[in-house]
Amino acid sequence: MNAEAGAAASPERLARAYLLRAAEPPAPALVRFVAEHGPVDAAARVRRGDTPPPVTSETAARRELDLARRDLAAGAEQGARLVTPEDDDWPAWPLLTLDVASGRGVRGTAPPLALWVRGTASLDTAVEHAVAIVGARAATDYGEHTAAEFAHGLAESGAVVFSGAAYGIDGAAHRGALASRGTTVAVLGCGLDVGYPAGHVGLLNRVARQGAVVSEYPPGTPPARHRFLVRNRLIAALTAGTVVVEAGRRSGARNTATTAGALGKVVMAVPGPVGSALSVGCHELIRDARATLVASVPDVAESVGPLGNGLAARGGTVRRATDGLDPESLRVYEALDTRGARTPEVVATEAGVELSRVRAVLPALELDGLARRSDSGWCRTGEDGRAAAGPG
Amino acid sequence: MNAEAGAAASPERLARAYLLRAAEPPAPALVRFVAEHGPVDAAARVRRGDTPPPVTSETAARRELDLARRDLAAGAEQGARLVTPEDDDWPAWPLLTLDVASGRGVRGTAPPLALWVRGTASLDTAVEHAVAIVGARAATDYGEHTAAEFAHGLAESGAVVFSGAAYGIDGAAHRGALASRGTTVAVLGCGLDVGYPAGHVGLLNRVARQGAVVSEYPPGTPPARHRFLVRNRLIAALTAGTVVVEAGRRSGARNTATTAGALGKVVMAVPGPVGSALSVGCHELIRDARATLVASVPDVAESVGPLGNGLAARGGTVRRATDGLDPESLRVYEALDTRGARTPEVVATEAGVELSRVRAVLPALELDGLARRSDSGWCRTGEDGRAAAGPG
Repeated sequence: MNAEAGAAASPERLARAYLLRAAEPPAPALVRFVAEHGPVDAAARVRRGDTPPPVTSETAARRELDLARRDLAAGAEQGARLVTPEDDDWPAWPLLTLDVASGRGVRGTAPPLALWVRGTASLDTAVEHAVAIVGARAATDYGEHTAAEFAHGLAESGAVVFSGAAYGIDGAAHRGALASRGTTVAVLGCGLDVGYPAGHVGLLNRVARQGAVVSEYPPGTPPARHRFLVRNRLIAALTAGTVVVEAGRRSGARNTATTAGALGKVVMAVPGPVGSALSVGCHELIRDARATLVASVPDVAESVGPLGNGLAARGGTVRRATDGLDPESLRVYEALDTRGARTPEVVATEAGVELSRVRAVLPALELDGLARRSDSGWCRTGEDGRAAAGPG
Repeated sequence: MNAEAGAAASPERLARAYLLRAAEPPAPALVRFVAEHGPVDAAARVRRGDTPPPVTSETAARRELDLARRDLAAGAEQGARLVTPEDDDWPAWPLLTLDVASGRGVRGTAPPLALWVRGTASLDTAVEHAVAIVGARAATDYGEHTAAEFAHGLAESGAVVFSGAAYGIDGAAHRGALASRGTTVAVLGCGLDVGYPAGHVGLLNRVARQGAVVSEYPPGTPPARHRFLVRNRLIAALTAGTVVVEAGRRSGARNTATTAGALGKVVMAVPGPVGSALSVGCHELIRDARATLVASVPDVAESVGPLGNGLAARGGTVRRATDGLDPESLRVYEALDTRGARTPEVVATEAGVELSRVRAVLPALELDGLARRSDSGWCRTGEDGRAAAGPG
């Protein structure tokens, strides 16, 4: 998409690329500091150590390491882009739940300073109908089959399946979504270029082609257990709900579920045979009323609700307001913003659609209730009025 | 036990034996009438048709049929006794829930006028720690295995397992309890002497030897579907809670669960594979919060509560060496290598933790046995050999 070689990058982008390396996420003090001073000023202060003690403590070990230009160049080379809060496709709404939880003092829920993204999907669109499917790495055939079936059905009904690209349930979920030609997003606990897990490099390439691979970790960051736990908050935050398919008594998937619950998201769990150690975690979540039992795709749709505008109750099929749009109209629609108005010229550039076509498509979108005209241009009304809705 | 030949029977016993035949249960008007006038006077009035219209309506078809002496004699011959509210072993307390529900107008919940009992167990003792296990007749191997396991475990821990002696889950529950040398009670929807279901005559004899077979239907009463539904209220009432093991979307077991819920008893359901039609009913009960998910005997004990005095809580929990670590220490730990030593400076950069903190944390990790100091720096000692394992 954007050519983001270090040389061409805006000061904000360079600052955030630097800040992503300056502190190990989640870095609540640094995030607050950036919100207060803006990324450019914040980065300058961090660089010279001119920060309040909590920020200093988070950044002391790495503040002298400025690889921003190198990271942006490497990312561009690898087909990855840095999406920042200053960008139009920053998934601001869903990530707001992290701001809220972090502000309430829920540990480890500070939002990311920016996200590395590789793939064809636009993040802010992907999160509109997003469901996470997570679970054990050492899954059973039953678990993998169920994860793939659920992902296939959800993707087929228009949802975007988020997961963590791990072996077992995660991989099965991505594969199920890919098989239905749907969109799927993998959120990693390492750099996008690290190729982890090794056996899923091909899968991650397919995910990027049909969706996106996302990480807050700079290129080259190795995987680590704490990073997977930290990553889990992003999976929870970026989706309307999390489905746990197979989880042992102690499992990272349960951590995602717990975080999703703390963020006010819908937590769901798939039951299994009572003799299976891999279903113990799911059964405990359900038994303790920390998760809703889901035994089918319609169950998930019913539980997630808001996502399920069109997702009918049990047995139904999903419809989106944008379902009837031809690819060109969809691109124009996607190029609109929900918050501010844009001129047809800007939309044309953003969508990569000829200006004359944009001028023809916009009134059609308006008739469909998908776009609104104002004095300063056009904006997206959101399908089904989600534009004005709170975080999911 | 008591020699109950018709000749020796008390007037109350004779009256109740007569009344049990006079109306098809449940007979709410007759039950109220008996409570008001006592069984002897009530029986006399029913016999001569001197009753208010609701009672007349319930008894009109059969009031002229007085087989009380013959029934008591036949029962005695078959090893069955009639237990009445006038007897010491009448399970008054659990059956009170039927009075309450019936009084509130819950249909079909009138208490029984008396109960025919065959077996060694005393009813009022059996109900003290009673759990019902019910489910589909066309059960899967998984369901039967689970029912038997649960019944075995519950009986072993001192509970009495109630069920309906049907094929499938019911039979497996009785067998599981018998196998643990525990007490089990079968409540039938036909006369005790009818030998139904035919394939379970041997099982019922064993249940009688190690517990009791119970019915409110007089000798010779044939089975009928409506009688099984009516019988279900007794299973629900006589136990502290009902466990449903496998139930299709429409199933008698769900009827028992619904009744148990209406009586204020604990309703539990066992999950199963999401693809199994025989688990659909259980999953719906759990999903709709009409049943608690139970995946083990301790789960049942915990749900039923009062019954579970001796029943242990959930199985042990696994502890990891790193469990007690705060996030910062965990990051330092993760930044260590199992193979080579690293300097505190390298660890600080890798972990994103201030050097001074790293210097403080490392000796603490050493005390916990998680880190080892060497000439060239620090390395990880590994937790229970998981050191080389992938991230969770």
